[in-house]
Amino acid sequence: VFIPLPGNSDRKEILEYYLAKVPTRDIDVSALAKQALGFSGADIANWVNEAAVEAARAGADVVQQVHFQLSRDRILLGPRNHGVTLSDSDKDVTAWHEAGHAIARIATGGTVDKVSILPRGMAMGVTISLPDDDTVFYTEKRLQSELVVLMAGRAAEELFVGEISAGAASDMARASELARAGVMSYGFSPMGPFVPKSDKLVAEAETYAANWVRDAYAQAKSTLVARTSEVTALRDRLLAEEEVTY
Amino acid sequence: VFIPLPGNSDRKEILEYYLAKVPTRDIDVSALAKQALGFSGADIANWVNEAAVEAARAGADVVQQVHFQLSRDRILLGPRNHGVTLSDSDKDVTAWHEAGHAIARIATGGTVDKVSILPRGMAMGVTISLPDDDTVFYTEKRLQSELVVLMAGRAAEELFVGEISAGAASDMARASELARAGVMSYGFSPMGPFVPKSDKLVAEAETYAANWVRDAYAQAKSTLVARTSEVTALRDRLLAEEEVTY
Amino acid sequence: VFIPLPGNSDRKEILEYYLAKVPTRDIDVSALAKQALGFSGADIANWVNEAAVEAARAGADVVQQVHFQLSRDRILLGPRNHGVTLSDSDKDVTAWHEAGHAIARIATGGTVDKVSILPRGMAMGVTISLPDDDTVFYTEKRLQSELVVLMAGRAAEELFVGEISAGAASDMARASELARAGVMSYGFSPMGPFVPKSDKLVAEAETYAANWVRDAYAQAKSTLVARTSEVTALRDRLLAEEEVTY
Amino acid sequence: VFIPLPGNSDRKEILEYYLAKVPTRDIDVSALAKQALGFSGADIANWVNEAAVEAARAGADVVQQVHFQLSRDRILLGPRNHGVTLSDSDKDVTAWHEAGHAIARIATGGTVDKVSILPRGMAMGVTISLPDDDTVFYTEKRLQSELVVLMAGRAAEELFVGEISAGAASDMARASELARAGVMSYGFSPMGPFVPKSDKLVAEAETYAANWVRDAYAQAKSTLVARTSEVTALRDRLLAEEEVTY
Amino acid sequence: VFIPLPGNSDRKEILEYYLAKVPTRDIDVSALAKQALGFSGADIANWVNEAAVEAARAGADVVQQVHFQLSRDRILLGPRNHGVTLSDSDKDVTAWHEAGHAIARIATGGTVDKVSILPRGMAMGVTISLPDDDTVFYTEKRLQSELVVLMAGRAAEELFVGEISAGAASDMARASELARAGVMSYGFSPMGPFVPKSDKLVAEAETYAANWVRDAYAQAKSTLVARTSEVTALRDRLLAEEEVTY
Amino acid sequence: VFIPLPGNSDRKEILEYYLAKVPTRDIDVSALAKQALGFSGADIANWVNEAAVEAARAGADVVQQVHFQLSRDRILLGPRNHGVTLSDSDKDVTAWHEAGHAIARIATGGTVDKVSILPRGMAMGVTISLPDDDTVFYTEKRLQSELVVLMAGRAAEELFVGEISAGAASDMARASELARAGVMSYGFSPMGPFVPKSDKLVAEAETYAANWVRDAYAQAKSTLVARTSEVTALRDRLLAEEEVTY
Repeated sequence: VFIPLPGNSDRKEILEYYLAKVPTRDIDVSALAKQALGFSGADIANWVNEAAVEAARAGADVVQQVHFQLSRDRILLGPRNHGVTLSDSDKDVTAWHEAGHAIARIATGGTVDKVSILPRGMAMGVTISLPDDDTVFYTEKRLQSELVVLMAGRAAEELFVGEISAGAASDMARASELARAGVMSYGFSPMGPFVPKSDKLVAEAETYAANWVRDAYAQAKSTLVARTSEVTALRDRLLAEEEVTY
Repeated sequence: VFIPLPGNSDRKEILEYYLAKVPTRDIDVSALAKQALGFSGADIANWVNEAAVEAARAGADVVQQVHFQLSRDRILLGPRNHGVTLSDSDKDVTAWHEAGHAIARIATGGTVDKVSILPRGMAMGVTISLPDDDTVFYTEKRLQSELVVLMAGRAAEELFVGEISAGAASDMARASELARAGVMSYGFSPMGPFVPKSDKLVAEAETYAANWVRDAYAQAKSTLVARTSEVTALRDRLLAEEEVTY
Repeated sequence: VFIPLPGNSDRKEILEYYLAKVPTRDIDVSALAKQALGFSGADIANWVNEAAVEAARAGADVVQQVHFQLSRDRILLGPRNHGVTLSDSDKDVTAWHEAGHAIARIATGGTVDKVSILPRGMAMGVTISLPDDDTVFYTEKRLQSELVVLMAGRAAEELFVGEISAGAASDMARASELARAGVMSYGFSPMGPFVPKSDKLVAEAETYAANWVRDAYAQAKSTLVARTSEVTALRDRLLAEEEVTY
Repeated sequence: VFIPLPGNSDRKEILEYYLAKVPTRDIDVSALAKQALGFSGADIANWVNEAAVEAARAGADVVQQVHFQLSRDRILLGPRNHGVTLSDSDKDVTAWHEAGHAIARIATGGTVDKVSILPRGMAMGVTISLPDDDTVFYTEKRLQSELVVLMAGRAAEELFVGEISAGAASDMARASELARAGVMSYGFSPMGPFVPKSDKLVAEAETYAANWVRDAYAQAKSTLVARTSEVTALRDRLLAEEEVTY
Repeated sequence: VFIPLPGNSDRKEILEYYLAKVPTRDIDVSALAKQALGFSGADIANWVNEAAVEAARAGADVVQQVHFQLSRDRILLGPRNHGVTLSDSDKDVTAWHEAGHAIARIATGGTVDKVSILPRGMAMGVTISLPDDDTVFYTEKRLQSELVVLMAGRAAEELFVGEISAGAASDMARASELARAGVMSYGFSPMGPFVPKSDKLVAEAETYAANWVRDAYAQAKSTLVARTSEVTALRDRLLAEEEVTY
Repeated sequence: VFIPLPGNSDRKEILEYYLAKVPTRDIDVSALAKQALGFSGADIANWVNEAAVEAARAGADVVQQVHFQLSRDRILLGPRNHGVTLSDSDKDVTAWHEAGHAIARIATGGTVDKVSILPRGMAMGVTISLPDDDTVFYTEKRLQSELVVLMAGRAAEELFVGEISAGAASDMARASELARAGVMSYGFSPMGPFVPKSDKLVAEAETYAANWVRDAYAQAKSTLVARTSEVTALRDRLLAEEEVTY
């Protein structure tokens, strides 16, 4: 059901492998390996490459720790989309939306790395949360938290903007797929550990999944109401600074 | 869910890029960028090209502001279909139909740029509304307004012609797709933020969408009844002038 | 939903374009354009060609008005199928069937151009009705009339022959498709202006369509009963003359 | 819905066309055209060819009327399957089955040309009925008669053999398709002249079709019971002579 | 619905055709044709070939009657699978299973030719029953008997082993297909002689088929209970001799 | 339904065939054949090859019994996935999960060969159970036991970890397929020996299969509760030693 990401020692080995190919000075591989938590092998290779590009841009003849810090965002967030400039009202909606995701992540016990309202690719904003530790197992509790976080962008729009935008559609699509998997592949619903195939049982399973998503939405709203000041503060900071790094 | 159009500064840059390729005099790029609100990058490139053609036709050796004004319609409306001549009764139906769209757009807080009963492509008439501002987000309110505007052509036929023509079919098809997206992709209905897949939930979602379209139709009719004099005035002007620019 | 046919002035232009390619004398283009009401551009090109062939057969060195009159039927009706000779009883059924179509067309306010019981292509007989004017819009009233006319062939068989033949199958198929479009694409039923996609709503729509066809059949029968003498007279004339031109 | 077969004069012309290509003497084309009732153009071409082969086998240097008589069966029935020899009990079942078809055809006002229990192709036996006249129209009455005739083979097995064989399966398949067409394409059922497409209406239509087939089976049985002596006589003659020509 | 096998005289002819190609002495073709009851043309050709191989192995210069006897099993049963050796418990299950098939065949009036618990191909054991005579017709009674025989292997496992193995799955699959054909293609159920296509009628038909299979299973069990001693004797003999020829 | 694996004597022959191709000393083929219970022919060929590789690595010039012991795991378990290092909490979940499978296998009368929490391929851990004897038949009892063993990993997570991880998804999928086969292909449910095809009967069958899986899960939990000390002991040993061989 999932492809495990490299563990800490694996990441260290992968980093060493790629670092051997570029001139470096004073690199703390252990620190980089820790920061690369949640990276795939390809992400790591890409990171070393971007750091080398960063060094070249800066006129440095060797890659140093600082170049890795500067290029980590590009690996995590994807390249900026400079062709899109948000209007003020869209910026406001995006700031509330991302602040909702971020505060809900924290409220459900997760960690937020970065929140941004600079458009990247097709996304108007983004909230990055790297995994807390090297645990690869997905549990029912973690799945339900994920649903709450996915719904929190939309919840923030309803609560603080006063209406919901179509921009919440991709969150809806991901939450719906995740909820369906939770019922039909992981057996977390009262239907138990059976993978249904017939129309009747699949429709029954989807009813559970739909209820989960609705419940997660309700929980996202009550969570954000309880943390209104935090959401507001982050939204204000995002409008002022565009990107917030934790 | 949507590809954002270039913002104002982006449009200015795109205009400058293409204008650098043709001889020009006294062009107000800022004004053009504002008029290009709602244009894609390709529309802008096309506009510069059409203005150059317009200048050449006029025997001018440089492209000027006026040539842009003259060619903007062709970008917005598509080329005229000279092979079709409407009968008087068809002209009348078309005038009521487009007047319905236009007045409903204004009544729901939108702006109309141009209304025409000159056949273009497969369309007997057309009503153009550029976006009010650079906002890219689609909200439930905006979606419901759009449904009312789409239904207003048909509503005008029922109210003022006395019967509905099959020419309203493409409005119906677009409204139905938009309503379905509102329920199933954007989660604006009581079903909430779940993307259904099973036959049962999809059929339930479609029932909401069908009710939205019927409600929008009822609202379009009451809106036009309340603005009968405006609709009648615009219809009269369309019959007299064939195209009305706001 | 429909490709508009050329209007009167368009037909005149098209005629002039093709007439310029053949030697002619004393052609009244305006009269021809009027007779070509309901012709597509290709039909007009074809008509000029057939008139030239007609002239050549007659040994004339220029195409004249008379050659157009003689070849107009071939454009309207398609070529005769000389391989099929109807038995007397089939001829009788066909005469009643076509008389039913023709009288119902007249009764619903339409115009009949020609009725024939000479087999053409796969059809045993044919009734031709050109459009009354250049109106391109299809309304609910026009659709319901069309259903009555399509059903009137079968109705005549039931009323005057005493039983229905399978020859009414193509009328049934066309009426069923038209009724379905009226409900699902044009929104003429109580379901209103929504284009259904889910099995449930499509089945509901089809029930309306089926009722329309049955109602049209009932109306066709009562119409023909009320005009029994007209139907009988036309049927007698068809048996005697095989083709009747109005 | 149907491709009309050549009429009598058409058949005469087709015969003359093909006869012109082979040496003949004293051929009565009018008589042949009458015997070819129900033949397609290809059947007629094939018949002339088979007659020529027959003449060659007989050492005749010209094709004569007699050669046409000798080869007509091959056109009607297809070639004998000499690889199959029926056991006595199978011969008995086949004789009752074909006698049932033949007597039911006569009882419903039709004409039988030939009945055979000599295996041809995949069929153990065959009953040939040419059309009574050149009528091409299929009516509800004719369709219901056809269903009775199709069911009569099976009915004869049940009545006179005491049990039904799987050999009746192809009759069942043809009768079911014909009944479905009668309801859904010809509109002969209480559903009226509508061609259904949705699952619900198609299932309703099939219920009518199934009842027609069951009714036809009941009628076939009562028909054969009333004509027991005729069926028995024909079955006896078939066992004795293997082929009976009317 | 079925491809008739060659009759007795046909088999004789086919045998003579192939025997002409190999050197033979004292062959009784009539006896061989009788033993080949139920063989297809290809089976017969294969038999002559295997007999020639048998003769060659035995160092004989001509093929004799005895070589046909020795090779008949290979034609009927397929080649031995020497790669599989059954454990004692599997041998026991197989012996009861095949004894069940064989005794049920005899109890329903059929004839058994050979029973074997030597693995061949994918089958652990096999029971061979050649047709009783040259009858090609499949009746309802014969179909119901076939279902009982197919179910008897499983029934024997339940009665004498105490539990059912998955090895009965191919019998289940064949019985289910046969029962479905009996209802839907042969019309042997109360649904009568109609071939259903719509989901509703097909599901109804399958319910009849499922009941037939269940009834056949019940009958197989009561049949074997009544003949316990015969089943036990055959099972004992199979364990001792591995193959029993009747 | 199943491809029988080679029996004991077959395995001996296959071993002798492959051993003849490599230099060996003091090999006990009978012992190896017994240890290869449950191996396919390809597995055996692979085993001889791996033993030769093992010998080469050890600098031995002949393959000996010990090399077979050392390489048997690789055949059974697949190659290690050294790229994945489990976190301590994942290791704990995996240890409980595999201990659950292993103790349930023993509790249902089976034998466990090896339990491991070293990642191999996509699996975080693995429990190997070779077949007890050469029996190839799958019975209802064996199928139900298999369901209990498949569910026991998930049951151990619920009981001893306190929540269920998505890692149980592949067990769910296999159990669901096995239960469906038990109902629809082997006829072990109250639906009896019928292979359903229509939506209605297939959905009914799936309801039985779902209940079986749920019952197996309940039984797995009560089994593990009754054997808590055994599960705990094995989990402790797995955390300490990573692999336990029985």
